[in-house]
Order: sequence, then C-alpha cells, then structure tokens
Amino acid sequence: MSAEDPTNSRWRLDIAYDGGGFSGWARQPGQRTVQGELEDWTTQVLRLPTPARLVCAGRTDTGVHARGQVAHVDLPADAVRDDGTALLRRLGRVLPDDVVVLSVRAAPAGFDARFGAVWRRYVYRLVDQGTPLDPLLRHQVVRVPVTLDLDLMDEAAPVLLGLRDFGAFCRRREGATSIRTLLELSAHRISAGPYAGVLELTVRADAFCHSMVRSLVGALVSVSSGRSDLAWLARVTDAAARTSDVPVMPAKGLTLEEVGYPPDDQLLARGRESRTVRELTPATPGRS
Amino acid sequence: MSAEDPTNSRWRLDIAYDGGGFSGWARQPGQRTVQGELEDWTTQVLRLPTPARLVCAGRTDTGVHARGQVAHVDLPADAVRDDGTALLRRLGRVLPDDVVVLSVRAAPAGFDARFGAVWRRYVYRLVDQGTPLDPLLRHQVVRVPVTLDLDLMDEAAPVLLGLRDFGAFCRRREGATSIRTLLELSAHRISAGPYAGVLELTVRADAFCHSMVRSLVGALVSVSSGRSDLAWLARVTDAAARTSDVPVMPAKGLTLEEVGYPPDDQLLARGRESRTVRELTPATPGRS
Repeated sequence: MSAEDPTNSRWRLDIAYDGGGFSGWARQPGQRTVQGELEDWTTQVLRLPTPARLVCAGRTDTGVHARGQVAHVDLPADAVRDDGTALLRRLGRVLPDDVVVLSVRAAPAGFDARFGAVWRRYVYRLVDQGTPLDPLLRHQVVRVPVTLDLDLMDEAAPVLLGLRDFGAFCRRREGATSIRTLLELSAHRISAGPYAGVLELTVRADAFCHSMVRSLVGALVSVSSGRSDLAWLARVTDAAARTSDVPVMPAKGLTLEEVGYPPDDQLLARGRESRTVRELTPATPGRS
Repeated sequence: MSAEDPTNSRWRLDIAYDGGGFSGWARQPGQRTVQGELEDWTTQVLRLPTPARLVCAGRTDTGVHARGQVAHVDLPADAVRDDGTALLRRLGRVLPDDVVVLSVRAAPAGFDARFGAVWRRYVYRLVDQGTPLDPLLRHQVVRVPVTLDLDLMDEAAPVLLGLRDFGAFCRRREGATSIRTLLELSAHRISAGPYAGVLELTVRADAFCHSMVRSLVGALVSVSSGRSDLAWLARVTDAAARTSDVPVMPAKGLTLEEVGYPPDDQLLARGRESRTVRELTPATPGRS
C-alpha cells in the first residue's frame, strides 16, 4: 500500500499522548506502544482488510510525551467517506485516555509526515533545587537536585546552535548520520499559572538523532549547575562522538510539542529532497 | 496539646497534592488520606511522643487536588530546633510523590489555618466539546460533552455572588450553616502554553460547604451549555435547599489554589471572631 496507489488516500493525524504508559512510539512485539494502539484501533474501527500503517514525524522514546505528534496513514479510498470527522470521533470513543487523536484531515498532495517535516520542536520541563515539584505535574516535569544559573545556560546554548555533527549527543547507530541543524535552544522560567517556577528548555532542529534532545538538555544542566564549564561543552561538542560525560536526562520531562511543515505547494519538492538525503545517509529523523 | 500550651509551638505548613490517589484530606480509618500521610510521617520523622495533629484550611474531598493547601500543627517546643528547614527536608525525603510540603514556617502569633483564613480560592478546569483533552492533563481537567458559551457564563456568575444561603449547592449536614459569601466567580479560557484551550473557573469565598464549588461549577455549565437558563439559576439559588437539578462536577477538575489570611497583626482578632461564629453555627469551613 502506498500513497502513489490511486486506490489509496493519505490522511494526516495530529496526536497527543502521555508517554508514561508507553514503550515509545514505535511498534514492538509484546510492548504497549503509541503506534501499536493507533494502528490497531484504526484497523479495527475502519474494518480494514490489511492493518493500517502509521508514519510519524518524531519516533519518541519510552516515556517521552507528545502534544504535537504528526503522522500519516494511507487508507483505501473507500475507507473514509467524509472529511475525517467520523474517524476522529470513532477513535475518540475507543482509544485509551492516555492517547488522543487531535485531528484527522485529508493530507495535501505530497504530504509525508516524516520526510516532509522541516523541523521538530521539543520542550524539556524541569525544576531545580529550591523549587518544589508540583505533584500535579510530576509525570511531565523532572526535578534536578542542583541550582541552575539561567545566565550560564544562555551563554552555553549558542555553542550548540547551527549545522554540526551532534555525535557527542547521540546514541550511535550503525550507518546513521548525526549531522543535524539545531535551529533553537533556549530556556525560560514560567512566571505564572499552574507551571509557575518550571524551567522550559525549547529544542528545535531539522531532525534529531537518538537521545539527542535529552543529551543536549543534560549538557545545559551540567554547565548551568557549575558542574562543567563552557570549555568542556566546546570540547565535547567538537568531539562528535558520544561520551559518558554528557548526562542523558530522564524521558518524562520531554514533550514533542510541534512539527513544522512547508506550505502545501512546496510539499512535493520538500519530500523528494528530504527523502534523497535520508536515503543516502540512513538516519532516523525525529528520534528523541 | 494546644497552641496555648507554652511548651508547644505552632507551625504553618503549605501543601500541594494530587488528589487522585487520596480519599480526600480528612483522616479516616483504613483509607489513604492526605492528613493521614502528613500526620504519620511528621510523627515519625520527629519521633513525637504523641501523634501530630494537622488542622487545614480546606478539607478537600476524595479526588480534589491542592496547590495551596495550608495547615497548622502544634509541636513540642523542642521537636523543631531550626526555622523549619530540617523538617521540610526530612518530609521531602519520606513523603510519597503525590503530596509535597512546600514550606514549613513558625506560625505567627494567633495563626490558625482553619479559623484564621479569610478566603479560599479554588479553580475548576475543564474543556468543552470541540477541545480535545490533553492526555498530560487528564487527571486534573474534566471534559464535558457540550459546548459552553462564555458570555452566558459571565451573565450567570453575578446571580450567585455575595452573601447568601448556598443550601441549593451544598450537601446538607445536620446543624451546619450554608450561609457563605461568594467573593469571586469568573471564567476564562487559557490562550497559550500547555493549558491552551482549558477553561478555568475561579471560585473564591470566605468558606465553602460540602460539594459547593463543584455544584456552583455544575450550575454554570448547565446555564452556559443552554441546558438551563438564568431564570432557573435564580430559582434554584433562592430555593436555598439542595435539589438534584444542580449537577455536581467530577472531583478531578478541582484544585484548591490559595488560602487568604489577614496580615499577621490582625490574626488574633480574626481567629477569635471566626471561631465564635463557627461555634454558634457548626459549619465545616473550607469543604469543597
């Protein structure tokens, strides 16, 4: 089944989930995964002849949450007979309450949730020493037993920005590239409302290699707590090979918030370009 | 043991909890309660000769959360030998992660967490039809399967404000008054951040009778969804007796956010006044 098959139509799903109860996005035998739940229920409510297969923008790890996951699925043309509203409603009735399909829409021509994405934005949430962890947020905010200096964090972030080999921050995979463009890395403390006191670290890149967001946050925590300095950060970054020096932060603080796509009329070109690059260097875009 | 006992000293505790795992605040045999956890652990870490007894500002029901609960406890003068920091730290090490003591401070003269409080502020959080419930917030936000008109809600709220008999919104208790002063009742929809789309209803009163906040919210939902009209609300409010017409909203949407106290130099006067009124009319201040 492929999008090029004229008997199929492609749908875009926007998805949110609490990662706490899942062994990540990717389907694995014997594990409860987001992809598994969504595919199984989509197949069932639509009574598909063959199982639905979802392709997502960011294959989140075990325990990582999402508010803005995007996926596509190719379905027989007669499987969905309206604008997606009925499928959205039916999934809403059967899915467990830790995963929610936010919308189902006909995908524009050339849309590919994975290869069409131009950036992924993650937010890591934590509190440092002196700020109690709100028990209502304990499943999505991490408490670190050190005091963080936001000025030091602001100094460290630019060291990491731009196009570079993030090998030092990636779990190595055979044949996978770790060259990425880090577009944004910024920290701010929330001043009011239910998240008051929480430190939000925004990490946005064209794509991520495995454990990259949590390693980048770990490096910033290391520098801003005074455990390491900027010279260490520059040295580690240049090394371009994973070292045990960079702490990988716990998964529960991480949420995939948003995925960026080009305007509809540029989707076809973007998909071709991205697919070519990835096939030359078989990376796993969007891993976190 | 009493505050007047010169061998005792009174401490103020500020407390947050996820109510989902508790049978409410108040200690009950065989039940897991917030008061029970806090008293048992305080007694244990301080090795008190007699069990600690906490008095709180708002005795929340099963499933109701708190970010700003306040309690006091009278302890032997030699039990706490610093400004409360050590007890705070020790409780932080032993308490389960769904209840957090935010601060421990020596109570100012005349402080009484229950009788000294001049208002309690609760927030009820919900989403209506058309807004998906963020799975990360599903334990603290309620979804209602109707569309709510905020303009209607704004029209309805003033009907309920002020000093009146809230009998229609209270579970009746023998000998307990339901006369209360509703100081604030307002709704707004959060526009950005993790709670975007969530409707927050703020309910602030001098004190609450049992199930009052959840009934007030239920009445507002009823009017703003078009199920009932303002005439119904006025009629119910005047009836001053509980009717099954007023829906009681689920507990998980409700959070005790803040308790107000007078300035320290007015505490003694306030405590005497409040205690006298309550003893004449044995209410249960702060029930929600």
